[in-house]
Amino acid sequence: MIIKVMTLFPEMFVGPLGNSIIQRAKENGIVDIAYINMRDYADNKHKKVDDYPYGGGPGMVMTPQPIFDCYNDIVNTLVTEENQRPRVIYLSPKGKTFDQQMAIELSKEKSIVMICGHYEGIDQRVIDEIVTDEISIGDYVLTGGEIPAMVIIDAIARLVPGVLSQDQSFEEESFYSGLLEYPQYTRPKDFRGLIVPDILTSGDHKKIEEWRRRKSLKLTFERRPDLLKGVELSKKDKVFLESIKEEK
Amino acid sequence: MIIKVMTLFPEMFVGPLGNSIIQRAKENGIVDIAYINMRDYADNKHKKVDDYPYGGGPGMVMTPQPIFDCYNDIVNTLVTEENQRPRVIYLSPKGKTFDQQMAIELSKEKSIVMICGHYEGIDQRVIDEIVTDEISIGDYVLTGGEIPAMVIIDAIARLVPGVLSQDQSFEEESFYSGLLEYPQYTRPKDFRGLIVPDILTSGDHKKIEEWRRRKSLKLTFERRPDLLKGVELSKKDKVFLESIKEEK
Repeated sequence: MIIKVMTLFPEMFVGPLGNSIIQRAKENGIVDIAYINMRDYADNKHKKVDDYPYGGGPGMVMTPQPIFDCYNDIVNTLVTEENQRPRVIYLSPKGKTFDQQMAIELSKEKSIVMICGHYEGIDQRVIDEIVTDEISIGDYVLTGGEIPAMVIIDAIARLVPGVLSQDQSFEEESFYSGLLEYPQYTRPKDFRGLIVPDILTSGDHKKIEEWRRRKSLKLTFERRPDLLKGVELSKKDKVFLESIKEEK
Repeated sequence: MIIKVMTLFPEMFVGPLGNSIIQRAKENGIVDIAYINMRDYADNKHKKVDDYPYGGGPGMVMTPQPIFDCYNDIVNTLVTEENQRPRVIYLSPKGKTFDQQMAIELSKEKSIVMICGHYEGIDQRVIDEIVTDEISIGDYVLTGGEIPAMVIIDAIARLVPGVLSQDQSFEEESFYSGLLEYPQYTRPKDFRGLIVPDILTSGDHKKIEEWRRRKSLKLTFERRPDLLKGVELSKKDKVFLESIKEEK
């Protein structure tokens, strides 16, 4: 997979994605990520990339010229043999909310371009002409599109085949069963008087599994009842959930 | 505001938060952010920080000892005169979904501690004893808690009084009116044959305002109808929304 990130701050990406799993994917040639500075494409003397919005209002808007020219330069290197254009993601609070389903879908692409905006956003003509996916990572305001781009790269790169080990992939799957995860404990059994629940050290795997399932169900019911709709529930699960509801 | 980030990868934070607004806040002494390596607190020879989960299952769990000792070290430097303990955020897919309301609330704290997990998560005893807020930035799987910590730091630091200029704060407010933002355009008016909508260059401010309001309403209706519930709608807004619904 090839990822091209169009940004005004390429130096922001040095630390976060130079790490662990993503770094290994880059070294193995599975994922190739490049950061391109849009400012280098500004055709004015002062390398200015923003201007006042038409129609008034506070803030500055990124001008179309550097973005279009940067994009054209990139896309020429990416066009596939079938002449397909790559997916072009614009990180924006107006976008569709990113979730694991979108991560899975995007991880199947051969190449992805990401545009990181700043200030009051980018000129709408860029969105109309170039962007294929406007994506938001959540309902909060951030300074620019760079940290959201890191979120999306991390989420999708780990799903590209060969990036995670088989064991890690399995974790991933179990993790995303749709329920929130049960509590985890590790050594020591007695940490300064705080004891691991007896059941987990009992060796009774059937009981452990049941305990974990109930913990997951209870946690999901309490914190994210919206997620329960998407989960296949056994008759036993349903009886248990009813008993929690009655307790309340 | 003091932010202490407990992590196994402090080097990840170098680029992302060394930038623009957050950097200025640090230089002005408004926000003080430190990254503490939990591994330095591991009391075993090999500085190991994870172990197998009790009860079986794939993956590794972060052991309680380094986290507790790192936390105790930090909290001693943070205890306020009133002996209040700081908010301790654990970034976790199990957490409450982060939103702008939480960002506003957290931006009022004097000090915040963040714990970034890795592997299959951290020992539950840490969560039970130390953590005050378990927070998720969205419904997707990431490699660790570092990038989510950056998201939260960016979202809250910009809300601390004195970080944004007055003009920027105003943007912020208008931006978070509850509706998705209308399209923005800037110079040139004619960019390679793509023309800015006439109304925006008409000088008729009342009409521009009305155009923008309708664009925001339409976009929100199409993409995030859930947000409309939280917005105060005028009679005119309601008539307009009805007309869109009929068109469909």
